[in-house]
Amino acid sequence: MNETPNQMSMPLLGIDWGTTNRRAYVLDAQGNLVRQHNDELGILAVQGAFEKSLADLLRKLELEHAEVLMSGMVGSRNGWRQAPYLSIDQPLSALPDALVKVETALPNVRCRIVPGYRSLAANGMPDVMRGEETQVLGALALGTTNGWFVLPGTHSKWVRVEGGAITEILTFMTGELFALLSRHGTLAALMQEQQPVFSAFESGMSASRQGGFTHMAFSCRALVVTDAMPAAHAWSYLSGLLIGSELHEIRRRTTGQDTLAVQIIGSPVLAENYIAALQFFGMSARVWPPDDVYVAALRVLAGIEHDDDRKDHAYS
Amino acid sequence: MNETPNQMSMPLLGIDWGTTNRRAYVLDAQGNLVRQHNDELGILAVQGAFEKSLADLLRKLELEHAEVLMSGMVGSRNGWRQAPYLSIDQPLSALPDALVKVETALPNVRCRIVPGYRSLAANGMPDVMRGEETQVLGALALGTTNGWFVLPGTHSKWVRVEGGAITEILTFMTGELFALLSRHGTLAALMQEQQPVFSAFESGMSASRQGGFTHMAFSCRALVVTDAMPAAHAWSYLSGLLIGSELHEIRRRTTGQDTLAVQIIGSPVLAENYIAALQFFGMSARVWPPDDVYVAALRVLAGIEHDDDRKDHAYS
Repeated sequence: MNETPNQMSMPLLGIDWGTTNRRAYVLDAQGNLVRQHNDELGILAVQGAFEKSLADLLRKLELEHAEVLMSGMVGSRNGWRQAPYLSIDQPLSALPDALVKVETALPNVRCRIVPGYRSLAANGMPDVMRGEETQVLGALALGTTNGWFVLPGTHSKWVRVEGGAITEILTFMTGELFALLSRHGTLAALMQEQQPVFSAFESGMSASRQGGFTHMAFSCRALVVTDAMPAAHAWSYLSGLLIGSELHEIRRRTTGQDTLAVQIIGSPVLAENYIAALQFFGMSARVWPPDDVYVAALRVLAGIEHDDDRKDHAYS
Repeated sequence: MNETPNQMSMPLLGIDWGTTNRRAYVLDAQGNLVRQHNDELGILAVQGAFEKSLADLLRKLELEHAEVLMSGMVGSRNGWRQAPYLSIDQPLSALPDALVKVETALPNVRCRIVPGYRSLAANGMPDVMRGEETQVLGALALGTTNGWFVLPGTHSKWVRVEGGAITEILTFMTGELFALLSRHGTLAALMQEQQPVFSAFESGMSASRQGGFTHMAFSCRALVVTDAMPAAHAWSYLSGLLIGSELHEIRRRTTGQDTLAVQIIGSPVLAENYIAALQFFGMSARVWPPDDVYVAALRVLAGIEHDDDRKDHAYS
C-alpha cells in the first residue's frame, strides 16, 4: 500500500544495501536528510545476520523508531528476503505499492524492501537490476527527461526510460572484468604501474571498435611486447577498452534512437571516465549525484512531498 | 645456419617450454621419437634457473650430449633468452635459419630457441605468438593445406597460412577469461557444479552472436536469477559464450574467405569443444595431435628427412 504523507510520523531510514557496501540515509518526517552513514557491511559481510545488523545500525544512528526502506542486493536470493523482480511492464510509479515487507522482532520499526526489475529483450535475453531502479526513480523525481541512464560500477547498468517506464536494461560486467584482469593473470603481470594515462584510455576506446573484447583484450599485451605501448599504459588502455566496449555496444543497439544525451548516476570519480567516453563516442553526459537521487527516491517511496524535488540537481 | 642431415649425429631434445608446462621430446639421430616427458616446470616454476633446469632434464632423460631446440615462452622477455619475433613477412621456412643460440656451460650440448612471430593487422593492431609457430610448421610438414589453424589453450591462437607463410594471427583470451570468471566473482558464485552440459554450451554459443562479451557474460547470471537456466548450466554456458565469441569474430573477419575447414592443433580434450563449435558455426574441423606435429617440426628444424612426414596424421 502506498504511504500517504500523514502516515509518516516516524523518521525514514533508507538503506542502499549492496553486496559489499551499505549506504544509509536518515530523513526526518518532512523528508529532510538529517544524517548519512556509509560502511562496508554489505550482504557478504553480514553473513545472514540481517536483523542484528539492522538493529546495530539503528542504535548507531540513534533511531528508536523508523520507517526502513531498503534497496539493492538485500532483496536478492542471497539477501535478507527475496523481493521478486518486477517486469518492466510495470512503470516506476508502481514501486511504492510493490515494496516487500520484512517481518522483524524489532519494536517500532517497519521494514520494507524495494524490488528490482527484470527485462526480456526482443532476442529473448533477460536482464535484471536491483538497487538501480531506486536511483532512476529518484532522478525522475528530480526532473530528468526520458532517455538512457548509465549507473557505473562493478556491473555497469544501462537503463532506458520512456514515459516513466523502463524500456530496456543492459548490464555490462565492466568493473568486475577490470578488477579481475588487472589483478590476476597475463594482463595484470604487465601492470606494475596503475596510474591513469588519458591518451592510453583513449587508445583503448579506439581499439574497442576494432573487434570483440575477448580478442582485443590481448592487444593490451601484444602492444606492450612489440614495444608499441609502454607497460605503464596498459592499465588505462584496458579501462578504455572495457568502457569503450560498453559504449560501442550501446551505439550499435541504438541506431536511430536519440542517444545524444546520457544521464550518468554516479560519484564524480566513477562518472569522470564515462563523461570522457561519452564525448569520445559523440554523446554528451549529465551527471546525477547518487546521494541526491537516492534521497529523492526515498521521498517518492514514502509519499513525502518536498520542495527540493523537481529542482535540477544534475551537472553537465 | 640450417642443419644438414649429416651434421646430426647427436640425439635431438625438443622442449615446448611454456609458462606453466614443459613438454620434452627425445628424437634419435634418424628422427625417431624415442622418449617423451611432460612436467610442470614452466618458466614461472623455474624462476630464472634455466640452465640448471635443463641440466636436470638432460640427466633425467639420460642424455650425455644433445642438440636442444626450445620453443614457447622460454624465448620471451621473461624466459631464458629473448628471441625477437619474426615478422610474418618471413615464411615458416625461414625458421631453421632463425634459431637463436643460447650459450651454456653444459658440455656436449648445443642449445637454440625457435623465435615466435608478430603480425600487424590492416587496422594497425599487432598480434604475437610463441610456440604455436613450431606446431604450425610441423602440421605443414605432415601435409596440411593452406587455411586457418586454431591452437586452443589459455590464449587461443588463430593462424592463417597461405603458401607456407603466416598471413594473420588472432589471439583470443578464451581460456584465461574462462578460468578467471569460473573461479572468481559473480559468475563463479553460481558455478557450484562444474560439469559439462552440452545443451548449455550450445545456448552459450547462440548467445555469443547476440552482443559483445562484456554484456553477454552477464546473461549467464540473468538467466539463472530469472529461472530461465539452472545454475548447474552456467559453467557450460560461459564456455559456449567464450568459444562462440571466438568463432563469431573469426566469421565476421573472414567473410568471403574459405573458412569451411579449420585445422585444430590440440589434445582431444581441448579439441572436442572446438569441433562442436566449428560445426555449430557451419565449419568443419580436422584435428592434429600436438605431439605428432611437434615431432615433425623438430625434424624440419634439425633438417632430418623422415618417412613419417607428409603422411596425413589428422583426423576429422
